[in-house]
Amino acid sequence: MAGDSKAKTADPKAKNGLTNKKDENFGEWYSEVVVNSEMIEYYDISGCYILRPWTMAIWEAMQEFFDAEIKKMKIKNCYFPLFVSPGVLEKEKDHIEGFAPEVAWVTKSGQSDLEVPIAIRPTSETVMYPYYSKWIRGHRDLPLRLNQWCNVVRWEFSNPTPFIRSREFLWQEGHTAFATQEEADAEVLDILELYRRIYEEFLAVPVVKGKKSEMEKFAGGYYTTSVEAFIPNTGRGVQGATSHCLGQNFAKMFEITYENEKGEKAMVWQNSWAYSTRTIGVMVMTHGDDKGLVLPPKVAAVQVIVVPVPFKDADTQGIFDACASTVKILSEAGIRAECDLRDNYSPGWKYSHWEMKGVPLRLEIGPKDLANSQTRAVRRDNSAKKDIPMADLVDQVKELLDTIQQNLFDVAKEKRDACVKEVRTWDEFVEALAQKKLILAPWCDEEEVEKDVKARTKGEIGAAKTLCSPFDQPALEEGTLCFASGKPAKKWSYWGRSY
Amino acid sequence: MAGDSKAKTADPKAKNGLTNKKDENFGEWYSEVVVNSEMIEYYDISGCYILRPWTMAIWEAMQEFFDAEIKKMKIKNCYFPLFVSPGVLEKEKDHIEGFAPEVAWVTKSGQSDLEVPIAIRPTSETVMYPYYSKWIRGHRDLPLRLNQWCNVVRWEFSNPTPFIRSREFLWQEGHTAFATQEEADAEVLDILELYRRIYEEFLAVPVVKGKKSEMEKFAGGYYTTSVEAFIPNTGRGVQGATSHCLGQNFAKMFEITYENEKGEKAMVWQNSWAYSTRTIGVMVMTHGDDKGLVLPPKVAAVQVIVVPVPFKDADTQGIFDACASTVKILSEAGIRAECDLRDNYSPGWKYSHWEMKGVPLRLEIGPKDLANSQTRAVRRDNSAKKDIPMADLVDQVKELLDTIQQNLFDVAKEKRDACVKEVRTWDEFVEALAQKKLILAPWCDEEEVEKDVKARTKGEIGAAKTLCSPFDQPALEEGTLCFASGKPAKKWSYWGRSY
Repeated sequence: MAGDSKAKTADPKAKNGLTNKKDENFGEWYSEVVVNSEMIEYYDISGCYILRPWTMAIWEAMQEFFDAEIKKMKIKNCYFPLFVSPGVLEKEKDHIEGFAPEVAWVTKSGQSDLEVPIAIRPTSETVMYPYYSKWIRGHRDLPLRLNQWCNVVRWEFSNPTPFIRSREFLWQEGHTAFATQEEADAEVLDILELYRRIYEEFLAVPVVKGKKSEMEKFAGGYYTTSVEAFIPNTGRGVQGATSHCLGQNFAKMFEITYENEKGEKAMVWQNSWAYSTRTIGVMVMTHGDDKGLVLPPKVAAVQVIVVPVPFKDADTQGIFDACASTVKILSEAGIRAECDLRDNYSPGWKYSHWEMKGVPLRLEIGPKDLANSQTRAVRRDNSAKKDIPMADLVDQVKELLDTIQQNLFDVAKEKRDACVKEVRTWDEFVEALAQKKLILAPWCDEEEVEKDVKARTKGEIGAAKTLCSPFDQPALEEGTLCFASGKPAKKWSYWGRSY
Repeated sequence: MAGDSKAKTADPKAKNGLTNKKDENFGEWYSEVVVNSEMIEYYDISGCYILRPWTMAIWEAMQEFFDAEIKKMKIKNCYFPLFVSPGVLEKEKDHIEGFAPEVAWVTKSGQSDLEVPIAIRPTSETVMYPYYSKWIRGHRDLPLRLNQWCNVVRWEFSNPTPFIRSREFLWQEGHTAFATQEEADAEVLDILELYRRIYEEFLAVPVVKGKKSEMEKFAGGYYTTSVEAFIPNTGRGVQGATSHCLGQNFAKMFEITYENEKGEKAMVWQNSWAYSTRTIGVMVMTHGDDKGLVLPPKVAAVQVIVVPVPFKDADTQGIFDACASTVKILSEAGIRAECDLRDNYSPGWKYSHWEMKGVPLRLEIGPKDLANSQTRAVRRDNSAKKDIPMADLVDQVKELLDTIQQNLFDVAKEKRDACVKEVRTWDEFVEALAQKKLILAPWCDEEEVEKDVKARTKGEIGAAKTLCSPFDQPALEEGTLCFASGKPAKKWSYWGRSY
């Protein structure tokens, strides 16, 4: 059946590996991994992707964590419409300038033209804030802190990539209003810390917290903070998630004012913040290998796959029963375990299949294991093997899953750190860029200079830009000069090409 | 400030009741309740509504239940795109005929026209099934059982009503494929039972399980089952949620075939099923009264509101502390409790406010309560009052909440049952319809007759149609004739006007 329209589905006779290698052919490798691991199916509209259950389990694991955390912060969920009327969308000029080229417009229903075209939300600032203006009257109405889980549409034309750049994606967007800048500032960082935890504690992806440059900040906002990841293979940064302080700019446009405790009219301070399904793409790129996906245990739909390994004369039923009872014991201990008892696939085929799908831990049970009351554990992250006595099953599996989670993070961090290159001159910068480094450079913090760097590095694979100024700043010695302009440097910034 | 654009927000001086009465002016009463209780805000695009946190808490309570139940059934969550290409959408002719007039079309992105207009999903059969065809090859790929939580768009022009009929709404849609009709049939009923439980156990709304007529079944499906609610005030039925067996019709159109155990090519049997935010509207209509919303405890964001009632010379701080500690005790016992310690509202204003918002139970703490270590409990459903000793707080509050939940259902069922009218002749039918009854009538089950009934009852307030044939059929005596055609009756059906 190879080559027909159904070739992507598992076939017992088919080779179930990857044809591309991560180090040789990263783009093709990535597309192949997300499809063959059954995370993504390409859709018949370009730039749209089907998120299969293997993906949704990851999304839901992160969502469960984040939703509970923001509820602790007294942020409440709501749902605003998908549609925006043009008058409202265009109210904040910088904002619409940033989003206008990507906005999808509904102009017809059934056979009839709409009186006025209606936009699909690319983000919901302009959808929500007219109502914030209505709901907020006095200081007792503050803070107003809302969040929604929804889809947004940005009809981009460049390089659609599953998870990383798609025309429709899922995200949460938080929109909050405060009486004071201090409260807004504090929330920006509280949320950013949750984003760091999603990447580092759930997806095992190291990120840098920092502030975006004026050029790279959110259209219409005051300042933008982000967590930035880095993909060593492509030498590209990825904006992982953003937490914006919008200042009072939208408040001015949408007249979001309140009467303060002194009875005076005052303007609110606002934030907005979001993370999206892009997180999942960053995880795939970071941990995946030439055997396929590698899932951190905390987000894996299946943490442990149990595979029977019967030989000709073995007690097949006994082995199958042992597999089932192993799953039962693990499940009762809260571990997400399944067994693959299909009789039309060989153990070797199953190993490859579940490695492709990235399951963190494989337990094999063969005649010898059955006789010795043990199971052989094989780690997905480093192929390490270990015999586990059944009597100690739950404790050892739990410990292994924790170890795998930590090891994935440690290895990723080591690789990322090895890419960081400190430069001080233009020549060093150009060389490091060619070597696909994550460049840390002293910068004068001037927009013209960033534009100039972009212009001078423009090429087929995109220009270099600032990724962020890390909050954790190395010491800036007196007299340090900007690598690009030669003017006095004001801060260290990360630079590179990005997704 | 009355009359200005901010008039809807709470104002300490404002009257916070309703201007419309449920029995006099049902439509206006409903709009006023959903807005004043802070469930809904009207949006600047007609037919779209903002779902505020008070609504989302209800949606999430149902979602938590339903999502866990379908996961137990091994149904997995996924996410398919919002957009459908026209070729696919139009593949199943009956289906597209049913939905075409309501489809919203995207024709532009930024300033550019799209090459081909793209539809926004009104439902996802045609979005998903081309991929079911790709994924399903052999009998081992079955059953395939997926669900998604998402928004859909139906650009309807008649009577937009919050929750009940909106151009965009939230729902879950399940789409499953089986090898045999038996499995599909069984799932249809399993899901329908979950829908019944959502209505009866969570929303305390009695429903009838049954089968839709050929005219009223899902466009392109084989048969449709539903849970039907009834609103006594308007005498209208509401289709509460539907569980469809699609038979093999879509499978034929989308070529969803598999190799069965004998190595022969066979066609799958499919179901689709959904419930939406409409559920919430039915709940509001059923329980709400002239003081506002009435929430069943199981879905209420706040189950218990604690209100301090200080008098001039009372120990105000002591009362406030007692309120806070009452909330703490209840929260620790898993009860969703809050206290209203605002100092710019009177106790009376707060009573009305939380009654408007439908909180099931109010606890008042005044000087006498403080002295006697007790609290006064006031039920929202029937205004019954009771003093509860603090020593027995948790047990008595839990018991009261259970009682309220049950009482709301019992009262609603009694009212609904009182509307049921059994008729046998056309004259009785017309009279019962004028009296806004839920009509149960023997029917010949012929489509032409249903069309005829529709034509003969057409009027300003809409025609009568079948709601469902209840699974729970009264005995049909030999020789019973159809109320409308005089032909031999085949079954009992519920008839009425509907939303």
